[in-house]
Amino acid sequence: MKKKKVIIIGAGFGGLTVAKKLNNPGFDILLIDRTNHHLFQPLLYQVATAALSPADIAVPIRYVFNKQKNVTVLLGEITNVNLKERKVFFSQREFPYDYLVIATGSRHSYFGNDRWEKYAPGLKTLDDALKIRENILFSMEQAELTENHVEREKYLTFVVIGGGPTGVEMAGAIAEISKETIIKDFRRIKPEDTKIILIEAFDRILSSYSENLSASAKTTLERMGVDVKLNSKVIDIDQHGVYLIEGFIPTTNVIWAAGNNASPLLKNLDTELDRLGRVVVDFDLSVQGFDNVFVIGDAANYKNEKGNILPGVAQVAMQQGKYIASIISGSVTKSNRKRFNYIDKGSMATIGKAKAIANIRGMEFKGFFAWLIWSLIHVLFLISFRNRLKVMAEWIWFYFTSRQGIRLITKIGKGRMKEIPISQNPEKQRIE
Amino acid sequence: MKKKKVIIIGAGFGGLTVAKKLNNPGFDILLIDRTNHHLFQPLLYQVATAALSPADIAVPIRYVFNKQKNVTVLLGEITNVNLKERKVFFSQREFPYDYLVIATGSRHSYFGNDRWEKYAPGLKTLDDALKIRENILFSMEQAELTENHVEREKYLTFVVIGGGPTGVEMAGAIAEISKETIIKDFRRIKPEDTKIILIEAFDRILSSYSENLSASAKTTLERMGVDVKLNSKVIDIDQHGVYLIEGFIPTTNVIWAAGNNASPLLKNLDTELDRLGRVVVDFDLSVQGFDNVFVIGDAANYKNEKGNILPGVAQVAMQQGKYIASIISGSVTKSNRKRFNYIDKGSMATIGKAKAIANIRGMEFKGFFAWLIWSLIHVLFLISFRNRLKVMAEWIWFYFTSRQGIRLITKIGKGRMKEIPISQNPEKQRIE
Repeated sequence: MKKKKVIIIGAGFGGLTVAKKLNNPGFDILLIDRTNHHLFQPLLYQVATAALSPADIAVPIRYVFNKQKNVTVLLGEITNVNLKERKVFFSQREFPYDYLVIATGSRHSYFGNDRWEKYAPGLKTLDDALKIRENILFSMEQAELTENHVEREKYLTFVVIGGGPTGVEMAGAIAEISKETIIKDFRRIKPEDTKIILIEAFDRILSSYSENLSASAKTTLERMGVDVKLNSKVIDIDQHGVYLIEGFIPTTNVIWAAGNNASPLLKNLDTELDRLGRVVVDFDLSVQGFDNVFVIGDAANYKNEKGNILPGVAQVAMQQGKYIASIISGSVTKSNRKRFNYIDKGSMATIGKAKAIANIRGMEFKGFFAWLIWSLIHVLFLISFRNRLKVMAEWIWFYFTSRQGIRLITKIGKGRMKEIPISQNPEKQRIE
Repeated sequence: MKKKKVIIIGAGFGGLTVAKKLNNPGFDILLIDRTNHHLFQPLLYQVATAALSPADIAVPIRYVFNKQKNVTVLLGEITNVNLKERKVFFSQREFPYDYLVIATGSRHSYFGNDRWEKYAPGLKTLDDALKIRENILFSMEQAELTENHVEREKYLTFVVIGGGPTGVEMAGAIAEISKETIIKDFRRIKPEDTKIILIEAFDRILSSYSENLSASAKTTLERMGVDVKLNSKVIDIDQHGVYLIEGFIPTTNVIWAAGNNASPLLKNLDTELDRLGRVVVDFDLSVQGFDNVFVIGDAANYKNEKGNILPGVAQVAMQQGKYIASIISGSVTKSNRKRFNYIDKGSMATIGKAKAIANIRGMEFKGFFAWLIWSLIHVLFLISFRNRLKVMAEWIWFYFTSRQGIRLITKIGKGRMKEIPISQNPEKQRIE
C-alpha cells in the first residue's frame, strides 16, 4: 500500500499533537514550522520577565521527533497552498499531500494600527519575549542612571494593554520584579517609584472568568501595586507614551496583550474567514468543500453545539489534534465522522507568586491554592520537555529567594540606546 | 575623612576583582559596563555551540554587588576620559574620580578588513555567541531543506579562522554537534556530509603551548573530523565563502577567532599604545604620568621582568585587579609600589568531550585527564555564579547522553533567511 502524505503546518500544541498521534508507518509526515522549536507559550511571560531562560520553555522540534522516523521536520515559511491541486508551496518547491493540517496559530494584532508594534511589542514568540525583557531591564538601568526626574518617571512607568490572561500575568510579574525582586539591586530607584498600569477596554479584567474571580484578580493586582484602568480605550501609542481618552501616560515601556489575528496564510485558502482572520471550519474541523484539509487551534473558528466559539488555548488545540489524528489514521470518510467535542478541563490564570485564579469543572479557586494547582499543572504539562527539572528548580529557587537570575541584556548598548529618547537637557550634570 | 571616588570601567574578570576587593566604606566605587552582566568568557563557545544557555555563564553585575553597598553599577558606554582633569564623561554627564581603573578588555579585530565581520562574526559577547549559534543551526536546517547538492555542501562547511584556544574550542565543538550529536536528529544530512576546516596562519595551532601539546591537539582535532590547515592565509571573505592563497572554500559559516584589538576608548588617553591598541603600562600597571590611573587585563600591555607581554587570560586580569585594589586601599604612593608579579598557575585548552591539553606549572597533560582538570577548574571558577549547579547538571547530562538541548533559533525565519544566499535554480523541484 502506498504511504499517505500528511503535511502539518505549525508545530504548536495542535500540530505537534497530530504528528505524535500519527506514529504509524503508513503515513509520511512533513512538519513545517517558522521556528526550530516548539514553545510552551503559557510560560512565555516568565521569559519576558526574566524568571526563566528561553531553553527552559522551548524544545527543538527535531528533538521531539528524533525517534519517530515517519516525521520529517523542515524550517521555513509556507508561501502558498493550493487546496484543489493538493499542494503546498514552500522554499521554491512544491509538496503534494493527501491530508493537510493547518495549525498556524495567531499573532498579536493592533486593530489596523501596525505602527504601534514598534512601541508596544506583543508576546507570542521567544524573540518577542527577549525584546520585552531587554526593554524592561534597560529601562530600569536608564532610570538608575538619569538625574532627570521627568525622564526617570517615564522609564519607571510600565503600561500593559489588555486585561486577558497574558496582560494580567505580565502586569503581575512586572509588579513583582519592579517592586520586590530586581529593584532591590538598584541603589537610586525605589520600589515606590515604579508605576504599573493595566489597561482594559471592558468593565472587568479576565472576562472569560466569573465576575467574582475577575474582581478577586483585580483586588490582588491592586494590592501588588498595579493600577487597573477599566473601560479605558487606547487612542494612540508612540515613542513618548500611551494616549488614552482620559489622558496621556508618558512611558518607554508598553506591552501589547490586547488582540490576536490568525496567520495571514489563511487568506490564500479562498474559504470563509471570521473577522479575526480564522477559518470557519465544519463540524469535523475540515475546510468547507475539502474533506482532507483541517484547521485547528488558534487558526480555527469552530462553533460547538451550543454555538460558542472555542477559546484560543492549548487544551483546545491538543484535543483537536487528537481528534484529527484519529480521522486521518482511520481514513474516516466525511459521512462517518462524528462532531468534534471539546471537554473543558478547566482554566486558570496566574497573577503572581502564590496568587492565581482557577475554574475547574465549575469549581472556583483563588489565592495560594489556585496558584498551587496552576504550578502543578504547568509542571506536568512540561512533561515532554527535558528541562522540567530545571524549571522546577528555578521555581523553587525563586519561591524561597524572590530573586530572578535570568536578567540579561544580550545586545550591547550602543545601537539599542538610540531607540530610547534621551534627555534633551543640554546642561552637564554633576554627580557628587 | 572624605570618601575616595574610584571609577572602574568594565566588569570583566579584572574590573570585577578590583570592585570586590575594595569592599571598604572609605571608597565610593562607580562600576560602569556596556552590558548589564559579567560574562564567564572561557565558556562562551559553549553558548555558541548550543551546549549552555546565556544565563548559565552570565550573572547580572548588580546581583554580584547587591550586598556591597559602596558600589554603584551603571550601564552604558564612556564617551571620553580626561586624565588631567580626573573626569570620566558618560551619558551627557561628567564623573570626577580619585582613582581610575580601565579594564575595558578587547574586541575581535579583522586587521583592517572590517567588512569581513558581516560574514565572519567573532566571539566576545553573548550577542556574538547567539549570532553564531543561530547561524550554525540555521545552516543545518537549510542543508536539510535544500535539494541542491552544491548549496547543501556550502551550508555544511564550517570554517574557523584562527588556531588559538577559541578557534580550537569552536572547531572541536562544531565537529561534535555536526558529526555526533545534533546531526542525529536530521533525516537527510549525514555526519560525513559536514566539513569543518580550521585555518591557522602559523605552522602550528595553540602556539602558546609546547610543540608536543600542539601536535597532540592537531591529531585529536583530525580524528574528530576537523581539517586543520597550517601556514594558511585568508585573502578575503564574502557571502560566498573564504578565499585562501591555496584556493576558495564555499561556505555560509565562517567564525573569526584570529585576532583581538583593545577597546577604541584607549585612543583618547593620549598615552603610548602598542599595535593592538593596548596601553603600554608602567611596572605598577599605571599609565605613564598618572599614578592614579591603572589599566589591567586585555586592555594593558604589561611586560614582566623577563620582557614578556602577559597573555590576555582571566588569570592575569584577576591577579592584576587584586594588585591594584591593594595599592588603592593602602593609598600606596608610586615610590612605595612593588612591581606587579604574575604567577602562572597553568593554562589549558579544551578540544572536545574528554579531550583537552593542559600545562600546569610546567607539567603537561593531555586527553581525558587534562579534560577532567579543565572541567573541575571551570566549575570551581563559576563559584560566584548562582548557576553552577545547573551548569554541572548540563555537563553531566551532556556527557552521558551526547545530546544538546539549547539549540534555539529565537529569531523568526523571514528577515533572517534573506541574509543567506538562496539557490538561483528557477526550476521548481518536487519531493516524492
